[in-house]
Amino acid sequence: MNPKPSQISAIVFDAYGTLLNPSSIGERLSELLSEKSAPVLHTWRQKQLEYTWLRTCMGRYKDFYALTEDALHYALSAHDSLLTASGIRQLMSAYYELAAYEDVHPALASLSGQYELAVLSNANPSLLERGVHHSGIEGHFQVLISADEVGLFKPRPEVYALATQHLSCAKEAILFVSSNTWDIAGAASAGLSTAWVNRGGKVPEQLGYNASYILQTLTALPGLL
Amino acid sequence: MNPKPSQISAIVFDAYGTLLNPSSIGERLSELLSEKSAPVLHTWRQKQLEYTWLRTCMGRYKDFYALTEDALHYALSAHDSLLTASGIRQLMSAYYELAAYEDVHPALASLSGQYELAVLSNANPSLLERGVHHSGIEGHFQVLISADEVGLFKPRPEVYALATQHLSCAKEAILFVSSNTWDIAGAASAGLSTAWVNRGGKVPEQLGYNASYILQTLTALPGLL
Repeated sequence: MNPKPSQISAIVFDAYGTLLNPSSIGERLSELLSEKSAPVLHTWRQKQLEYTWLRTCMGRYKDFYALTEDALHYALSAHDSLLTASGIRQLMSAYYELAAYEDVHPALASLSGQYELAVLSNANPSLLERGVHHSGIEGHFQVLISADEVGLFKPRPEVYALATQHLSCAKEAILFVSSNTWDIAGAASAGLSTAWVNRGGKVPEQLGYNASYILQTLTALPGLL
Repeated sequence: MNPKPSQISAIVFDAYGTLLNPSSIGERLSELLSEKSAPVLHTWRQKQLEYTWLRTCMGRYKDFYALTEDALHYALSAHDSLLTASGIRQLMSAYYELAAYEDVHPALASLSGQYELAVLSNANPSLLERGVHHSGIEGHFQVLISADEVGLFKPRPEVYALATQHLSCAKEAILFVSSNTWDIAGAASAGLSTAWVNRGGKVPEQLGYNASYILQTLTALPGLL
């Protein structure tokens, strides 16, 4: 069921965890919280995801940046931790200043020109634009697409449908690239070909929709196509 | 914003974690897996929830029992653990044989007769009926309502709307009772009054929809009304 690589004319990337490396947020948090930072960070990330899914199910959309701060407040409370308002501002502003993973620049440089490249992210436009700009990769993309446009989060099929709408090409011509296992399942369920960048040696979801391709890093992507 | 107790004529309970105690599944798992049972159990429960939300977002409904087994396979794989087919059957059948929490029988006995009582659960009908029967509480309920009827899981508002549809009373006359923080947020967002049974000393979600009442155990419920 894998697409013939020759069919692919556009590559659409997830942003957080796929292109942009959130590890600097953990470092900032550990400066602020010391020994409690690891459980707070784990809960924060988990709740951030949960709040995208729960709010989508509830029909109560709130933008990704705002619900990320809600998730931080939950995580601090759950681990009986406190941060000053200034500490919270520092952490939240770190979201605008993530670096790209080291395999991102060379992969994009190799692909751009040959393929239409885009980003499809849960992040609201201002967060996504500033993040992509700060990491120095914005020049490679034709378009930055935000789930905010439909007021729903991944894995709702309406979000993945934004890729075909913005790129004016058929679903079969798009390869969707993500490091997030559930995002790969969602995109595959929505009918896109998928490449799972499994930098962390995770196991796939048991959701019945598997990746077309599995890569250890983005470095392998140009050779695949 | 709390409802006047006199308005309440029906009480609708979540099942798993609220009436039925899943701790026996952890005990069964620890007999089968020994030292790896704690992380497997944690991941299993987390993935079970995630799969209800993800499949609801994806528009790929699968019944609760079946996706619970999918979540078990994920958890075993994630922790590099193996169970025999017989071990998996034992664990999954334990889902049919949960006991009620010790505060459940006296609370239901006190409320039944005064209020219409119902269960509203993500569990598919056969699982829900067998679980409620096995725990010896079925005589208290007018109706067992399953999310399966709408092919969506909580916290979709369509699931909570099943309560008013089955109980032929206004939303304002229903008190929804759950131990699950996200379930309370979902029911409150859907317009129901809610009582959060916080046996575990958890913190509330930061989703903007809080419980009308917070109880430490169900024992306090009759006195509240």
